[in-house]
Amino acid sequence: MISDTIAAISTSVGEAGIAVIRVSGPEAISEVERIFKSKTKLSEASSHTIHYGHIYNPESGEKIEEVLVSVMRAPRSFTTEDVVEINTHGGVISVKRVMDLLLLQNIRLAEPGEFTKRAFLNGRIDLSQAEAVIDLIRSKSDRAFSLALKQVDGALSRKIAELRQILLETLAHIEVNIDYPEHDVETLTAEFIKQKSSFVMEEITKLLKTANEGKILREGITTAIVGRPNVGKSSLLNTLARENKAIVTDIPGTTRDVIEEYVTINNIPLKLLDTAGIRETMDVVERIGVERSKTAVDEADLLLLVLNASEPLHDDEIKLLEQIRGRQAIIIMNKMDLPRKLDMDVLRQYVDEQSIVPMSVKEQSGIDLLEERISNLFFGGKLETQDLTYVTNVRHIALLNKAKKSLQDAYNAADQLIPIDMIQIDVRLAWEQLGEIVGDTAPDSLLDQIFSQFCLGK
Amino acid sequence: MISDTIAAISTSVGEAGIAVIRVSGPEAISEVERIFKSKTKLSEASSHTIHYGHIYNPESGEKIEEVLVSVMRAPRSFTTEDVVEINTHGGVISVKRVMDLLLLQNIRLAEPGEFTKRAFLNGRIDLSQAEAVIDLIRSKSDRAFSLALKQVDGALSRKIAELRQILLETLAHIEVNIDYPEHDVETLTAEFIKQKSSFVMEEITKLLKTANEGKILREGITTAIVGRPNVGKSSLLNTLARENKAIVTDIPGTTRDVIEEYVTINNIPLKLLDTAGIRETMDVVERIGVERSKTAVDEADLLLLVLNASEPLHDDEIKLLEQIRGRQAIIIMNKMDLPRKLDMDVLRQYVDEQSIVPMSVKEQSGIDLLEERISNLFFGGKLETQDLTYVTNVRHIALLNKAKKSLQDAYNAADQLIPIDMIQIDVRLAWEQLGEIVGDTAPDSLLDQIFSQFCLGK
Repeated sequence: MISDTIAAISTSVGEAGIAVIRVSGPEAISEVERIFKSKTKLSEASSHTIHYGHIYNPESGEKIEEVLVSVMRAPRSFTTEDVVEINTHGGVISVKRVMDLLLLQNIRLAEPGEFTKRAFLNGRIDLSQAEAVIDLIRSKSDRAFSLALKQVDGALSRKIAELRQILLETLAHIEVNIDYPEHDVETLTAEFIKQKSSFVMEEITKLLKTANEGKILREGITTAIVGRPNVGKSSLLNTLARENKAIVTDIPGTTRDVIEEYVTINNIPLKLLDTAGIRETMDVVERIGVERSKTAVDEADLLLLVLNASEPLHDDEIKLLEQIRGRQAIIIMNKMDLPRKLDMDVLRQYVDEQSIVPMSVKEQSGIDLLEERISNLFFGGKLETQDLTYVTNVRHIALLNKAKKSLQDAYNAADQLIPIDMIQIDVRLAWEQLGEIVGDTAPDSLLDQIFSQFCLGK
Repeated sequence: MISDTIAAISTSVGEAGIAVIRVSGPEAISEVERIFKSKTKLSEASSHTIHYGHIYNPESGEKIEEVLVSVMRAPRSFTTEDVVEINTHGGVISVKRVMDLLLLQNIRLAEPGEFTKRAFLNGRIDLSQAEAVIDLIRSKSDRAFSLALKQVDGALSRKIAELRQILLETLAHIEVNIDYPEHDVETLTAEFIKQKSSFVMEEITKLLKTANEGKILREGITTAIVGRPNVGKSSLLNTLARENKAIVTDIPGTTRDVIEEYVTINNIPLKLLDTAGIRETMDVVERIGVERSKTAVDEADLLLLVLNASEPLHDDEIKLLEQIRGRQAIIIMNKMDLPRKLDMDVLRQYVDEQSIVPMSVKEQSGIDLLEERISNLFFGGKLETQDLTYVTNVRHIALLNKAKKSLQDAYNAADQLIPIDMIQIDVRLAWEQLGEIVGDTAPDSLLDQIFSQFCLGK
């Protein structure tokens, strides 16, 4: 089992008030005690207490840092092991000095996600909860965070456990009838299997229905704003960003040709793509940029085509209208504050009435309507399903689909009165596939792959 | 006095395992309790204890985040007020959700440095200690960190307090003699003043002697590496950086023409400037770049001129040698692994023997010697003065100089037997000037200016 003690910087590195180094393992308390001086000895400290003191180099006697040390004793900790958290002054040198000294003790540097992995291996959380921890950290919108938090809390785990329990009872029932294979019992058992697998299949189907929404809520609706220059495209982007300024997130890669910005409009996260570059050009370098922008448009979940309502349609815009036909798209008739010269009838040839939103970005009108239309397009109405358990993880989706397939096989076999010990195999397979979601039956290589996606110190 | 409760994110913002929000003020515990559910009520929690639970929106009942909450009751906290620290999952959304909710309570967003300012205003630390806190966070080398930590611990404060005590006793002595102005007593008092002010002046002089070293240790020796292309300049930079890779710090502004890198060679912090751009050129834009590089060279504390020992001197190098004459400079004769064609005698016309360092960056030889020579140039030998109290802050240096001047005035006046109540004014001035270092006599505008340099959350 786990026997070594690990440490890592758990906060983001940079100039800040505080940084936190986390230490976990059987020797966390005794090893930190060797380099920490305080009024209370750490080894005598109660669980969940905080101690002011200094980190010293035990050999040179040099004072290394002024710290607050928290002690959380097993099993009441994140990893269920003894955990010591060292609060240092923020800044690069401070954490480096303390980390360097820790690693000279009987402590090794933690791998990315190793604290969470230990929480999983020690049984405090299951695999789907562990996976949700990384979703929490990476979330780009309030809504995505809520979903991940529910999953950390075990909403999905409980649902999966419930379905697996039904399958387990079914297997027990089958087991009994393999021992007493009378004809009548067999038929009854086949019926029982059909009934149970139907029920579980239905529940899985419900879960899978949330998958698309869940993915969107987690990753945002990839939204490309397109249109000719000067139609108010940039103003729309700015308006959407300013309205929710605080949660606009700069993600790495803003130097790419296509600029990404996360914006949340009334709980609906949009990943806005600025495609200002799209236009006909002869310049070779610019043309590469335009090609990339076109790719982004092709891959977007949603297109916002901005038109200038105070001007007749331009040829370039006709081309754009052709492009969006059959796509998830909303046409924004901007500049409605000016006299209208745009012919609505032409637009209706390309999209339905519901997808045309009159707006005046300048006067900040029409934003609510735009939001409502986006809601309708992706969620068939308002987002009120706070209680639903969403499946957001592609690994989980794949396993749910596999389990559903196995149950369908079991159902079909039972329907054809195929010998019950054959059906048993499919039911057991479904039980295992669901188990892999929560990590009950997950192979080591999968664990390594999942936890390697974590950041250091979690 | 202070009556409101403040909060700020105290860790660096980014994807990480943990983020910490700090709340301080009389209502810190009661206001956080309104949004936090745990087994123990926060208002009943002992000081220095940690509580696992969840942050809830008290109106909607929505679960906002899974957290660990630390309680540190007044006066045993950083600010000496009630302090609550909320450990959330790392990531942007997590801290934003909790901060948004906190600010809806009777809590306002803290200004930069406001926690430290409160620690100062509440008398837990003095001004020089508060200033050292920001030095801790900003420090770019181990040595700079050590100096700041000593100052946070109060090394400078104690020294200043000691000198002020002597001046205060001198003032008391003067006071007595103003009441009994007999001639003999007056002469004796003048002698007493001369003796005491001499002593304090000497002590101030000792402190000021550390100022230059202190500044260098805090900010690093600004070191420009110059030389023709292909002499091994970049290799030297890489070697110096690689040797101490872990504490090389990327500072903002790498896109400027002059690239800066912090490197520590055996406790001596160097701010390396890459001046690769220096060469004759006809290109207008490049010439601007070269001009900027030349400015950097002009402003450097130390020049490392790299020559190729396997080739005779080039005309460009003669020009560079002219430039470094009379400057703090070291000539690095690189490529000593190849047959030597460079005439040492020519070099000796520009710098003394001690400033010529034969090296082979390729074979990694000569680094130790380079380090020793840098030590000698700036510190007159090895850095072993661990016990010295360094003055590193320009504000402190200015005040020490002022106080020394005031004492010199007092000394001169006493020497000329000027009426003792006149001398008293100078001694009192010196006492006040020293007091301004520790913030005893500092005006509000100065405090605002000092604390505005802090980062948020400290």
